[in-house]
Amino acid sequence: MSQYQTIHSHHSHYGWDNGIEAVRQVAPGEILEFEVRDASGGQLSARSDASAVGTLDFDKVNPVTGPIEVDGAEPGDAIRIELLDFAGVGWGWTAIIPGFGLLADEFKTPFLHISEYDEQRVRFVDGIELETAPFPGTVGLAPAAPGHHSVVPPRRVGGNLDLRDLTRGATLYLPVEVAGGLLSVGDTHAAQGDGEVCGTAVETQFSVSARIGLVKGANLPAPQCETTRPLRRSRRDDKGFYVTTGVGPDLMQASRDAIRAMIDHLGKHYGLAPEMAYALCSVAVDLRIGEVVDVPNWVVAAQLPKGIFL
Amino acid sequence: MSQYQTIHSHHSHYGWDNGIEAVRQVAPGEILEFEVRDASGGQLSARSDASAVGTLDFDKVNPVTGPIEVDGAEPGDAIRIELLDFAGVGWGWTAIIPGFGLLADEFKTPFLHISEYDEQRVRFVDGIELETAPFPGTVGLAPAAPGHHSVVPPRRVGGNLDLRDLTRGATLYLPVEVAGGLLSVGDTHAAQGDGEVCGTAVETQFSVSARIGLVKGANLPAPQCETTRPLRRSRRDDKGFYVTTGVGPDLMQASRDAIRAMIDHLGKHYGLAPEMAYALCSVAVDLRIGEVVDVPNWVVAAQLPKGIFL
Repeated sequence: MSQYQTIHSHHSHYGWDNGIEAVRQVAPGEILEFEVRDASGGQLSARSDASAVGTLDFDKVNPVTGPIEVDGAEPGDAIRIELLDFAGVGWGWTAIIPGFGLLADEFKTPFLHISEYDEQRVRFVDGIELETAPFPGTVGLAPAAPGHHSVVPPRRVGGNLDLRDLTRGATLYLPVEVAGGLLSVGDTHAAQGDGEVCGTAVETQFSVSARIGLVKGANLPAPQCETTRPLRRSRRDDKGFYVTTGVGPDLMQASRDAIRAMIDHLGKHYGLAPEMAYALCSVAVDLRIGEVVDVPNWVVAAQLPKGIFL
Repeated sequence: MSQYQTIHSHHSHYGWDNGIEAVRQVAPGEILEFEVRDASGGQLSARSDASAVGTLDFDKVNPVTGPIEVDGAEPGDAIRIELLDFAGVGWGWTAIIPGFGLLADEFKTPFLHISEYDEQRVRFVDGIELETAPFPGTVGLAPAAPGHHSVVPPRRVGGNLDLRDLTRGATLYLPVEVAGGLLSVGDTHAAQGDGEVCGTAVETQFSVSARIGLVKGANLPAPQCETTRPLRRSRRDDKGFYVTTGVGPDLMQASRDAIRAMIDHLGKHYGLAPEMAYALCSVAVDLRIGEVVDVPNWVVAAQLPKGIFL
């Protein structure tokens, strides 16, 4: 039981549409608890196998809980979402979905991996543990453009940002495009690396408590956020990193090259099969842009924390 | 005076060419000290102003010290460079050079800023201090392709990688394309953010001590490296980050949008002029790829450590 007003997960919608009626109206300063379903909308369970990935109904993925109308929010303002607390269910899934992901042309077979987690650790496999760092992959407002908009791409108003910064203590600012904002939350993750390269994180069901605020006249060009501490709190980064790179004139291809090299590294040095290595990259490896100015070639770095190996 | 064999900075070259004769031959395991000139090759001094940026001779920028031939190195091997120590001169420059940098279309006027640093801190301006984290922006081998190749772009054999990981304790692996490898080092930086967005870091002269090794048959697709600790050691990250984003179908444009938003944030909240804010982004803000799978829009995050503000 939450001490806050709860927005239950049956108050959810698929995709964004500013014609969807708000399920609640809140004043700035109120705290809400969003019950969020996992990105499969309950189609996958802890006992599912890869065959369930192949038969997913994509009309039912990534349900978002809401929308919430914020008193006084108008276009040009920003809605402020301070992430206070997360309560999870202890297991999550990571899938390779054919046609989806940074290396979709290479990984064409459905793959599913189940991890367990507690407040501190995600047990990915025996001998590999990540820090539990819960965040909502999707936090967004309704766009000004009328009609239905897919939930998959993030937009100026937020949405499926998959930005791992949005964990406990972080504050997100989203540009308002319609009166009331129409805020919804979904797609909770127990852990993710920058890039989310295989297309899924440790996907799981969390209840998310957040204080909802309003910044009048913020006029933000895109989402912005603020954290109060380092993005990961554990000592796993203290062991340093193994870093692969992609070097070339296209940041997307350089990202692909860096992850391909990391998959090879994980196979060669840790014995991981390619699918498992790709999934591990998605939940634990961070993509950084090393340099983007030395024309015509840029450097993308894929950064593996060595401390995840016990 | 170094305890190691020194490769003096007059043993330098401009651009890469596998026809340049090695200045020394070393056995794997030897430690060398590379005397590196700053990226202007001495054209800028601590008393230079922006006018000196406008008259730079670009045929004389980014001299690299070397090349060094490594005994037994053959195509398919990797040269291993373990970065042991750095000795700097205490001041460095950050320039906006017309026609160069992520926002070259917007910042068209020469700009020069001088910072001072010691072992711990870079004093960027009053009230803004960065961690001193020295690394060579350029570490490379001679490419297999004959003739002269510009020093500006990095390549499969390394070069102007501008990868800030390569500080004390890190180990870089570079794919060998010609017998002996022909290793050179240059472009030392006292601090840099991921992206090096204005095109220059805190550019300065360091002597770099490194143990040179060889990994036979490594067959690396591109440079890789390994660190033994977090990329920054100070407590400045403990105060958390302010993060702007760029959201859209092109990673380059998203990078530009994220940095543009950060320049606005630095102006609005810290009173920095646009040129100074852009330069600060280049030396202190990190570009991360938040997600690169939610078709068709990707998220690039620009991350400002709040702890750099005193």
